[in-house]
Amino acid sequence: MIGMNDSLVPEGALRACMERIYVREGFEESDAKKIADVLMQADLFGIESHGAQRMMYYHQNIRSGSVNVAAKPELLRETPVSALIDGHFGMGALTGIFAMEQAIAKAKKTGIGMAVVRNSSHYGIAGYYTLMAEREGLASFSMTNTGPIMVPTFGREMMLGTNPMAFCMPADPYPFWFDASTTVVTLGKVEVYNKRGKPMPQGWTIDAQGQPCTDAKRMNASILAGERGGILPLGGEGELHSGHKGYGLAIMVEALTGVLAQGMTSPDMCGAHGDHTCHFFLAFDPAMFGDPADIRARMSLYLERLRASEKIPGCTRIYTPGEKAFQAMERRLREGIPVEANTLQEVRTIAAELGVQGL
Amino acid sequence: MIGMNDSLVPEGALRACMERIYVREGFEESDAKKIADVLMQADLFGIESHGAQRMMYYHQNIRSGSVNVAAKPELLRETPVSALIDGHFGMGALTGIFAMEQAIAKAKKTGIGMAVVRNSSHYGIAGYYTLMAEREGLASFSMTNTGPIMVPTFGREMMLGTNPMAFCMPADPYPFWFDASTTVVTLGKVEVYNKRGKPMPQGWTIDAQGQPCTDAKRMNASILAGERGGILPLGGEGELHSGHKGYGLAIMVEALTGVLAQGMTSPDMCGAHGDHTCHFFLAFDPAMFGDPADIRARMSLYLERLRASEKIPGCTRIYTPGEKAFQAMERRLREGIPVEANTLQEVRTIAAELGVQGL
Repeated sequence: MIGMNDSLVPEGALRACMERIYVREGFEESDAKKIADVLMQADLFGIESHGAQRMMYYHQNIRSGSVNVAAKPELLRETPVSALIDGHFGMGALTGIFAMEQAIAKAKKTGIGMAVVRNSSHYGIAGYYTLMAEREGLASFSMTNTGPIMVPTFGREMMLGTNPMAFCMPADPYPFWFDASTTVVTLGKVEVYNKRGKPMPQGWTIDAQGQPCTDAKRMNASILAGERGGILPLGGEGELHSGHKGYGLAIMVEALTGVLAQGMTSPDMCGAHGDHTCHFFLAFDPAMFGDPADIRARMSLYLERLRASEKIPGCTRIYTPGEKAFQAMERRLREGIPVEANTLQEVRTIAAELGVQGL
Repeated sequence: MIGMNDSLVPEGALRACMERIYVREGFEESDAKKIADVLMQADLFGIESHGAQRMMYYHQNIRSGSVNVAAKPELLRETPVSALIDGHFGMGALTGIFAMEQAIAKAKKTGIGMAVVRNSSHYGIAGYYTLMAEREGLASFSMTNTGPIMVPTFGREMMLGTNPMAFCMPADPYPFWFDASTTVVTLGKVEVYNKRGKPMPQGWTIDAQGQPCTDAKRMNASILAGERGGILPLGGEGELHSGHKGYGLAIMVEALTGVLAQGMTSPDMCGAHGDHTCHFFLAFDPAMFGDPADIRARMSLYLERLRASEKIPGCTRIYTPGEKAFQAMERRLREGIPVEANTLQEVRTIAAELGVQGL
């Protein structure tokens, strides 16, 4: 979808601009390419919130020193199936790629590789890393904790992050690619309603008094200020629609990231996006269990059956996770990437500040 | 909670009765004890739907031959970190325990064990198996597909099971024990509203026309008849409250069970409970990443912080997953297990039919 205030930027131009910027921010060229690739994947998939839109946030973190440009991820402990990595507060994208590379290398040797990371930073879309495994024919998980944004079921303090979980399994014509926060919505959605001046649907957030809040402006300000109230877990308020399940999933992600990596848990992070985040990666080879081509064909068939199943009246399509993203990517590679006016301006500002060619 | 029609049965009496019944059904004594233990864990945890209440269903499956009493789980393929198991249509509890034992043994040797199972049957509460790993100090996952009961987002055909996911991580005073279906509610909830003649909340089910359905009687009958309409994914209808996330989680469970084990996927099973179900188990040792006592303490502390965080006005407690179950178990071990009148009658009927001492 191209919005009124969007400019279409060719994929190569946006990517090259990102690479120039990250080289000038102080990263080695190969690392700048990696950071750009994580951002570009989000923009190609139509997940604008995690693409070029995140560059100003990264820029500010680099300027403030909360992200350390010189940091190299360090392998603290390993076994043939596991790795513990310290990100030393470097760019999350670089630490994430390093960690998933460890998990993949171990999975290719032993069948399974699990890597957990502490002292990282915002690592972009969780699902980026599962695509790395998918290219090697592996299934995989990727999870991260984030700054506090979610209230527990029956609580009004933001004690959990958006805590997304991504899972990917090879299939045709697209992999099964699932990437979802365990909140009912992300902060990005609240921001969008705030920018548009629209009331949010009931069931997304509660205010400091524990009352349902549909005022996006008030909620956005309250979250950024770290006040009481916040975004509800997947399933919503209380237990009637199983909000306790989304809450439980979020704690599970916290257990596998902040706790297992012995790093910071969400409530101790500053700001909604999170600083010293922790990640979890698991890659494994379906070939341990049978002919990988057969398993892939079974996955593809099941997804096709879902898409072909009967729709409710008025609906013409059933999607399977990843389908929209891969179709967006095909279109965007062909037609260019719609970049929102504010984001375009931010990229130009960063480029000008660093003295590199902008867009 | 003890209902009006509940009898309090001492734990030992109920367990012994179950064991007598499964011995007379044709299982070896050690296997009868295992089946009873899986059922008893549900009753102790207060998950009545999966305790003694399931015995008539198992009895009928054994009588009809859809569950094979003589079957032994077979290890088809293995590596130091993985096992593929064929259940040969035996009791799900026995196949599940066998499979999790493989995963645990491998995790204790290599750090990680993954076991997938095909041709199993209803295996009780998914979380039972994670407790086996927990007793060994391991973290673990357990998942199963089930008979079709969930409609895809925008669909009206039941193409997915309740497809629960359980995860457990050692902690004090209770482990973090999460066990949840990926539907907004289970069939059991629809049955309860049907029995009570109460309308269901909106957002649980849709009917054959894709309209929200609050008529529990009509929905219960329609699901059992395999008609159009069904239970919605966690997150509810459409995408506004992220029903597509529950739908995606359910497909993920299907990918890790039916697809990975190359068995049956949910839509091909008969009946809501499922017959030839497939399971997924993953056990791993936190000690791969650090001092397990430190990781356990961190998990305990985080859970305690959640419970101690500020409540919304009118709420006095924030629970963490597993807390209610472990507290119910303490009470039930002390005071006895409330068994609903119909369930008690069913157990007596089975006992009488088999000529063993009932309750």
